[in-house]
Amino acid sequence: MENTLSLAKGLPDPLLPANSRSPRHNSISSAEGKAVGFVLVHAGAGYHSESKAKEYKHVCKRACQKAVDRLKAGALAVEAVTAALIELEDSPFTNAGMGSNLNLLGEIECDASIMDGKTLHYGAVGALSGIKNPVLVARRLLSEAQKGKLSAGRIPPCFLVGKGAQQWAVSHGIPPCPSEKMATKFSMSAYRRNKRKMELAEKVETDRCQLKRGRQSNDSDLGSLGKVKAIMADGEENDSACLDTVGVIVVDQEGNVAAAVSSGGLAMKHPGRVGQAALFGCGCWAQNSCNANPYSTAVSTSGCGEHLMRTMLARECSSALQSEDAHQALLEAMQNKFISSPFLASEDCVLGGVIVLRCCRCAETSSDIQALLVEFLWSHTTESMCVGYMSAQDTKAKTHISRLPPGAVAGQSLAIEGGVCRLGSTSD
Amino acid sequence: MENTLSLAKGLPDPLLPANSRSPRHNSISSAEGKAVGFVLVHAGAGYHSESKAKEYKHVCKRACQKAVDRLKAGALAVEAVTAALIELEDSPFTNAGMGSNLNLLGEIECDASIMDGKTLHYGAVGALSGIKNPVLVARRLLSEAQKGKLSAGRIPPCFLVGKGAQQWAVSHGIPPCPSEKMATKFSMSAYRRNKRKMELAEKVETDRCQLKRGRQSNDSDLGSLGKVKAIMADGEENDSACLDTVGVIVVDQEGNVAAAVSSGGLAMKHPGRVGQAALFGCGCWAQNSCNANPYSTAVSTSGCGEHLMRTMLARECSSALQSEDAHQALLEAMQNKFISSPFLASEDCVLGGVIVLRCCRCAETSSDIQALLVEFLWSHTTESMCVGYMSAQDTKAKTHISRLPPGAVAGQSLAIEGGVCRLGSTSD
Repeated sequence: MENTLSLAKGLPDPLLPANSRSPRHNSISSAEGKAVGFVLVHAGAGYHSESKAKEYKHVCKRACQKAVDRLKAGALAVEAVTAALIELEDSPFTNAGMGSNLNLLGEIECDASIMDGKTLHYGAVGALSGIKNPVLVARRLLSEAQKGKLSAGRIPPCFLVGKGAQQWAVSHGIPPCPSEKMATKFSMSAYRRNKRKMELAEKVETDRCQLKRGRQSNDSDLGSLGKVKAIMADGEENDSACLDTVGVIVVDQEGNVAAAVSSGGLAMKHPGRVGQAALFGCGCWAQNSCNANPYSTAVSTSGCGEHLMRTMLARECSSALQSEDAHQALLEAMQNKFISSPFLASEDCVLGGVIVLRCCRCAETSSDIQALLVEFLWSHTTESMCVGYMSAQDTKAKTHISRLPPGAVAGQSLAIEGGVCRLGSTSD
Repeated sequence: MENTLSLAKGLPDPLLPANSRSPRHNSISSAEGKAVGFVLVHAGAGYHSESKAKEYKHVCKRACQKAVDRLKAGALAVEAVTAALIELEDSPFTNAGMGSNLNLLGEIECDASIMDGKTLHYGAVGALSGIKNPVLVARRLLSEAQKGKLSAGRIPPCFLVGKGAQQWAVSHGIPPCPSEKMATKFSMSAYRRNKRKMELAEKVETDRCQLKRGRQSNDSDLGSLGKVKAIMADGEENDSACLDTVGVIVVDQEGNVAAAVSSGGLAMKHPGRVGQAALFGCGCWAQNSCNANPYSTAVSTSGCGEHLMRTMLARECSSALQSEDAHQALLEAMQNKFISSPFLASEDCVLGGVIVLRCCRCAETSSDIQALLVEFLWSHTTESMCVGYMSAQDTKAKTHISRLPPGAVAGQSLAIEGGVCRLGSTSD
């Protein structure tokens, strides 16, 4: 894919060519709006069938609207990120909160985290059951930690898991939700399908071992095993939609960034398995600009948790985005720090996606007012990724299902796209 | 072994000056040994009273010996690291495995992780109850993940928490251990003491609120509250020993590195709280040299989990150690990426410690044989840190309790010490 940009109808103006793309040159023509912020959301990197595309886009649109509503009401980035993420979790179509993938035992266990770019505080939950909106717990952990020490000088937790996390949530006023209310018709039927598939795969393996042991193997036996394996492989592809972690990144009127991510985890995961969505540096990242970093950056990831964890993809992307050309930086990060990462050397198929934004102040040509320039991008190695974005001056969110170009192999190739948005100062 | 650094009696010669310290200059005169490896362990950064010093040193010595025994028997780094860590976990004096801190409910929940510098695989458990040696589960997760996908193309977990982790361990042949067997007389009495302290602190807080509400505050009331607070603060200091996470780093005969860490977590933590010992990049790090990195590095951390998590201290130290002067690099990392980290800007007291090693091949002057040069260091901002180290040619381990210099303030100052060891090639 000649990545970036241009793409589908309804998308914003393409980014300018690399050599004129630097915000410092201030050469981008784009609509201006009140500096009340910008939001970019994703409903997962995975496989989004055409039949479900409408639903995915719809929930992304609603999530963007929620964030913008909060931003317009004066909320800061962390609050707007939370509002949008709750909307994504509440959708039965996404693999987060309501409708999450079921684990091996048919239970829902969620991971979520949130990071505030202003304070650099972070809150996370892992393998959390019985709470409708895991991000609310992560958010609450973050705000409690910001209050300082607990009684007797104890340091407040920033990462809670399992039953302890659920108890903490309830004791902090977040209502429990019966697990059966969080499973959907869709997640239940996917569970039954996956369970059959697993049993079949295990039978194939047992049969193969018996064949080997009995030295009875012949072409015909191996042929029938091959057929079963083909069915399995086909099934796997259809289930890659199970990677639909969701995420949100926001910049607010003060230029603060925040990021959040939430996931039901891999289908048929082992109980207690925690994926990237809970892990610092892996699921999301937000960091306001400072002396060392000219740009504020926010990142949220989606895909195979183990791949995203072991590459710390969120933090790597944030760090890469400090170089001049955002598009080139993200492209190189996805290529060198993910697909070709030495941490995943043994993996032939590296599945993931990210949404990123970076912003900086840039002087208006006509006045002393400083505008906020927001560059935003998404990139994925999965078949597709559903995103939505909206600035506070937009009347509605734009949504898009990004797909790998024809012939590209998922797990080995990538798509990258994005846009730019300039927000005027609040004094406009 | 000629190792290094200034310090206390019984410790070896100081590191050479910075300008002659680079292994590439090959200017260090040291005894040579068979290249069967080196181990460095810690029994925690915290406060080690003189009365307990002997026990801490003793367990460090035994742990080193376990690792060296394995290395001499031909084991690789991961196996040696595990053997040493089991010894540390089994000590009732350390805050890991047996004798771990109890949480708010009086239960033991452990975190542990391990990383293999050769494959860059990682395994971790969090909030794990009822398993005597949490590192064994982390080790098993690592080796299972190295085998590749599970049935039906499922990706094996690298991080499991809570009850699911315990079930996985038992189903993989690791025997359960009744929780009551893991608590010790010492951990039980510390729990009762901490509980009283917490109740007292909460009473103080309640009293203060009532005073404020009743607008009855006067100097004498506030004075009595002040006294109770002083008792509390004193108690806090005495309990900083509760940070005694343990860790091990090893380089083996092939020059592979591995690192591991294990912790019972903070005393009186909320159930389900997971600290740095379970988190990728935070608790330990090991990475063999490669094109981009001239040195193989291994790191293990100890201290306040939240501080170590939010600074990703293990990975930061590993990355810093790629610069020429190891001592200077670690000093700067501890200062800039930990004590003065923007991630801990709101903390007035940043508590932690690390052990690190780095190694590289260097040509012998007299032959074509390549020796392995191992530089090792420890640094901490806590009152003290107990370490032990041993190379395979040593007859016994050296141990040391490193303390902040007189007048230095814990949480704001640091101590740094270390040594160097040259291991001949296996063909010697």
